[in-house]
Amino acid sequence: MATCLVRPQDSNAVQQERPNVPIRFGVVGYGYWGPNVVRNLDRLEKTEVVAICDKRDGARQKVSEVYPDVRVTEDPMELMTSTDIDAVAVVTPVWTHYELAKAALENGKHIFVEKPFTSNAAQAEELVALAAQTGLKIMVDHTFLFTGAVRKIKQLLEAGALGKLYYYDSTRINLGLFQHDVNVIWDLAPHDLAIMDYLIQESSEAVSATGQTHLNGHEDIAFITVYFPNKVIAHINVNWLSPVKVRTTLIGGEKQMLVWNDLEVDEKIKIYDKGVHMSSPKGLYDMPVNYRAGDMWAPRLEQTEALTRELTYFVECIVNDQTPMNDGKAGLRVVKMLEAASESLSQRGALVYV
Amino acid sequence: MATCLVRPQDSNAVQQERPNVPIRFGVVGYGYWGPNVVRNLDRLEKTEVVAICDKRDGARQKVSEVYPDVRVTEDPMELMTSTDIDAVAVVTPVWTHYELAKAALENGKHIFVEKPFTSNAAQAEELVALAAQTGLKIMVDHTFLFTGAVRKIKQLLEAGALGKLYYYDSTRINLGLFQHDVNVIWDLAPHDLAIMDYLIQESSEAVSATGQTHLNGHEDIAFITVYFPNKVIAHINVNWLSPVKVRTTLIGGEKQMLVWNDLEVDEKIKIYDKGVHMSSPKGLYDMPVNYRAGDMWAPRLEQTEALTRELTYFVECIVNDQTPMNDGKAGLRVVKMLEAASESLSQRGALVYV
Amino acid sequence: MATCLVRPQDSNAVQQERPNVPIRFGVVGYGYWGPNVVRNLDRLEKTEVVAICDKRDGARQKVSEVYPDVRVTEDPMELMTSTDIDAVAVVTPVWTHYELAKAALENGKHIFVEKPFTSNAAQAEELVALAAQTGLKIMVDHTFLFTGAVRKIKQLLEAGALGKLYYYDSTRINLGLFQHDVNVIWDLAPHDLAIMDYLIQESSEAVSATGQTHLNGHEDIAFITVYFPNKVIAHINVNWLSPVKVRTTLIGGEKQMLVWNDLEVDEKIKIYDKGVHMSSPKGLYDMPVNYRAGDMWAPRLEQTEALTRELTYFVECIVNDQTPMNDGKAGLRVVKMLEAASESLSQRGALVYV
Amino acid sequence: MATCLVRPQDSNAVQQERPNVPIRFGVVGYGYWGPNVVRNLDRLEKTEVVAICDKRDGARQKVSEVYPDVRVTEDPMELMTSTDIDAVAVVTPVWTHYELAKAALENGKHIFVEKPFTSNAAQAEELVALAAQTGLKIMVDHTFLFTGAVRKIKQLLEAGALGKLYYYDSTRINLGLFQHDVNVIWDLAPHDLAIMDYLIQESSEAVSATGQTHLNGHEDIAFITVYFPNKVIAHINVNWLSPVKVRTTLIGGEKQMLVWNDLEVDEKIKIYDKGVHMSSPKGLYDMPVNYRAGDMWAPRLEQTEALTRELTYFVECIVNDQTPMNDGKAGLRVVKMLEAASESLSQRGALVYV
Repeated sequence: MATCLVRPQDSNAVQQERPNVPIRFGVVGYGYWGPNVVRNLDRLEKTEVVAICDKRDGARQKVSEVYPDVRVTEDPMELMTSTDIDAVAVVTPVWTHYELAKAALENGKHIFVEKPFTSNAAQAEELVALAAQTGLKIMVDHTFLFTGAVRKIKQLLEAGALGKLYYYDSTRINLGLFQHDVNVIWDLAPHDLAIMDYLIQESSEAVSATGQTHLNGHEDIAFITVYFPNKVIAHINVNWLSPVKVRTTLIGGEKQMLVWNDLEVDEKIKIYDKGVHMSSPKGLYDMPVNYRAGDMWAPRLEQTEALTRELTYFVECIVNDQTPMNDGKAGLRVVKMLEAASESLSQRGALVYV
Repeated sequence: MATCLVRPQDSNAVQQERPNVPIRFGVVGYGYWGPNVVRNLDRLEKTEVVAICDKRDGARQKVSEVYPDVRVTEDPMELMTSTDIDAVAVVTPVWTHYELAKAALENGKHIFVEKPFTSNAAQAEELVALAAQTGLKIMVDHTFLFTGAVRKIKQLLEAGALGKLYYYDSTRINLGLFQHDVNVIWDLAPHDLAIMDYLIQESSEAVSATGQTHLNGHEDIAFITVYFPNKVIAHINVNWLSPVKVRTTLIGGEKQMLVWNDLEVDEKIKIYDKGVHMSSPKGLYDMPVNYRAGDMWAPRLEQTEALTRELTYFVECIVNDQTPMNDGKAGLRVVKMLEAASESLSQRGALVYV
Repeated sequence: MATCLVRPQDSNAVQQERPNVPIRFGVVGYGYWGPNVVRNLDRLEKTEVVAICDKRDGARQKVSEVYPDVRVTEDPMELMTSTDIDAVAVVTPVWTHYELAKAALENGKHIFVEKPFTSNAAQAEELVALAAQTGLKIMVDHTFLFTGAVRKIKQLLEAGALGKLYYYDSTRINLGLFQHDVNVIWDLAPHDLAIMDYLIQESSEAVSATGQTHLNGHEDIAFITVYFPNKVIAHINVNWLSPVKVRTTLIGGEKQMLVWNDLEVDEKIKIYDKGVHMSSPKGLYDMPVNYRAGDMWAPRLEQTEALTRELTYFVECIVNDQTPMNDGKAGLRVVKMLEAASESLSQRGALVYV
Repeated sequence: MATCLVRPQDSNAVQQERPNVPIRFGVVGYGYWGPNVVRNLDRLEKTEVVAICDKRDGARQKVSEVYPDVRVTEDPMELMTSTDIDAVAVVTPVWTHYELAKAALENGKHIFVEKPFTSNAAQAEELVALAAQTGLKIMVDHTFLFTGAVRKIKQLLEAGALGKLYYYDSTRINLGLFQHDVNVIWDLAPHDLAIMDYLIQESSEAVSATGQTHLNGHEDIAFITVYFPNKVIAHINVNWLSPVKVRTTLIGGEKQMLVWNDLEVDEKIKIYDKGVHMSSPKGLYDMPVNYRAGDMWAPRLEQTEALTRELTYFVECIVNDQTPMNDGKAGLRVVKMLEAASESLSQRGALVYV
């Protein structure tokens, strides 16, 4: 395998020699999310879209209309082997990620991969090892980490505003869209798992998941509990059969608590100066619990498009040879939790260690 | 035991001989909920409050101020053995229910017992048997069944408006009040378990529960999944550490779905003419799923106080010798689910058959 | 008239000689609001209810049940001439206020009068003069001034948090209750006029009001604009024919703006760090306008019942011989605006100077 | 004037001879709204964009990028005199409408004009007369009439679902955008005036308007009352200085009432089965008023883009020689109400007959 690899140092060497030259991207997949990736790469100063691959005629035709100067192909290997491409964005269904990402890495390309990273942990581990070996960057597209909301929550946690963390409880439900290759957990929960992984900064210990399938053989409703060290508990409620759309996360801490309602236009995050504490440190069952209720505060959030910020960061990581926070290892941790959840789900809630 | 029992037939005999004479109640417990029970019994035409028992001086003093004509005592046995009392309302902490209810039944009194019925299933079974033996009525105070909201939902289900039931998903969270004798499941989930038991009309199969304790040794956050036959799944999210109060239940069916927000003043129930169906009956993974979205409708609900309706019904059941829908057996089913949830919780989600 | 007056100094003299003796009240009117006044006067340490007057048998009977020790009468003059009564609360329809209040003042009683103070400005002026002459206190029951919400807004304004005031815009609408003696302006607008009078601290200059009558001959929908000095403008939308209940007030200032939604349980007041300013001080039509948007903040509000706070303050004003902020003159200012609004309404919006 | 006119019959003659040939448009103005008009005309089957005019280099450059095949010019007269253009869309500031529309009509072009139609009624009348004389069509872009929401309300009114109409009460407020050529009435109220004109189907009788200017010399907050025959009253609250965005209209009728909240995603219109009626037909002041409260219902609305529907309708009107409901006369009626409101505003609410 090593023989066909472009040597790691080459890529960055090239990059470091020409700091003002943009990173040249190939993009595989121009379906639902791909156009957003392409639009951003096209618009950013330090990136350039060289070629786009999609198997569907219609998709390639759309590309040609909007980006007449970009090469179009139906063979992903054309991108992988192009000498004028530095990085590949893989924006395809999850079951294709491993093969495409591997080919890109083997051909010396940095990769930006849609979430979830891979279909299983073994694939993710192999890709992480391959990138480490070649010095190439992997960024898994955990877009939510780059939203104004999650960035603000991260800031609050790091500043200690919430105090010791108690729980993370998310509801992510709506009517459809039913997927045909994955269940509702693999479809909707990666968002929350990636956010939790970023915010909690501890490896999850174990997972319990329950759910039910009603229509097409995949679970359409599921409930995941993730146990973290230090009594932190996380819960995710995902559902394709809800009459209403909900995107609400509660985060409870010792000092303050917050509600993040992503469907709100102007006040997505509300921080409540509310808390509970025991009267006495030795306390147990009979200790009185005291409540505190103060003001509520909704901070103004940054409005930049998350994907713009993420792709800018990807370029910075390549140019400065930094490890992204949402690197292959982060992607792997999310896939491990998904695998554990799937296993637990098939055993109706049985605890599965991650 | 049988020796000290007032014979079953006596009580109803008496009742049936004097149809216009009110049922005479003794009430044990005048704390948070007791005053509401007393106020209703005092106000209704066919009930009368004869005596109230509470161990706390302050509580008894309050009774005397508001109801100067009612007997007051600190000894519950005075009520149990009174010859001018037909029924006893037990409105005390759960760990006292069994003993008080048993004494009442043994002395020939019908009983109205706060939820949850008892601390464990064995106690509930014993009380159910005792009542059966004596012909006395047990009503467990599953108040929510008598609200305009639950009555409307029941009606809709019975009329087939939702079609085949898919799921019941409830969130019941707020800041406090921490209990010292039970965890958040025993405190908040009995509401949902009783409602589910009433609406779903199937015995639950198995339970998986997860949660965490942060402050006083009792779980303050918990998530319960209940598996029912026919792929019906229920989920309950209870939390004493939420910065916001939420009382929202989603009920999904094949034809329509509804959202019940009990904190709304005027539009507690919204019924969505939304649904999902497979294109083909043989369908599995590759079958296209079709979505349907129509009008939303919020029916006007009855406004009568639930407890008024419930106590009126209790009297009817006594007078007409009917079995209440929320009888001891219903109370027992809820306690069994609570026991199963507690056991699962201690094993971090392991499935427990009910 | 002077002959029948208890001399002003007497009343306060008595009060100041016996600082720990409660103020003794007679209450006229035990309908919708009267019971709240009586409950508070009965509960407060420094007040005592001596006698209650109501013309309706049913009302008097209710009093006797709840307050067996309080004297009951159907003749208001019995209260006015009682020697054991220091103050009279007038909680009757507006057309009776003048006569009752006058009789009370002439008999040396302080008065607490429901809003609106009187049916016209001439009556209010006479009562104000009478009270000044006798040294007695008038408090007009502008209850809203004593809510946590209005107190917080007043604080913010006094601290300069909103900057120069731009506007006050209130919507106070719901279905019914239709009044038979007054139109929707006299029914609902006194709340806003009293709040504005308190917050804006400037005398209104002129009023324009429009509206329409659809059912019983009184306007059931109306819109009032009040012009204040310094370009402050106020607007009040009142409506008895709204399918939804709304109680929302916007207050805009140069620095910050706030929304007060009185139907919210927990976050009644939201303060927006938003504003607009001109780029250049000389600016007019062509000057660019700049926008600023920052955090939102919902302060915790005091929870004490407004009426409790108000009656406590009334007693303080009597005991310490202070002029209440909601004195007869404040009541008069509100009545003048109501008169102006009525006159403008009958001329379909024509400006009426106050 | 008549000499330079293309004869009326020519245009429709041409059109009727070639039913499958698209209407060829010239568009003047490619600023905020223009791109939406162009996008729709470009996409529709029966329309074609031939040329676009804008005075700003940047705007013309954008056109060339997105529509490389469309002619671009900075001289509007090039469009007016082109022989390959059938209709002109005027999407420019209001003060330019009259001159551009006149030139287009004089050159035999149908016109589609942004709202408000013209700066004053005299201009509108002249254009209406000119179109009548030439047989050309005027459509004023009252886009809201083509939204799913307004169409549904119209349907309900026509079906008599609300009963006799009582009032229309709209709030249309937000922070900015300050205009430099018009006040808040001319900026925001045309929406409501056009909707009212369409729904109420009666000519307004008189207008009263109040408001205030705080920043740049134009009123930034204003309140308009419009009196219609049969006791129908309308009110519009417009404000550029609101911390929150509100787009809510209440419509009250004898039988039912509705709330239209245009910011809701899924339930824009809620119809309340609520009402009020007098007990007796002869009724006046003393008649008891009865209330009725039933279900609430939120109908599913059509989702087609309003502008798409409107431009399709414009083409139909041209091809079939029909008079649009939003023709020049409708535009004139709105301008008359705007003029009356402006005049009333300058006299602080004085009634102005339309």
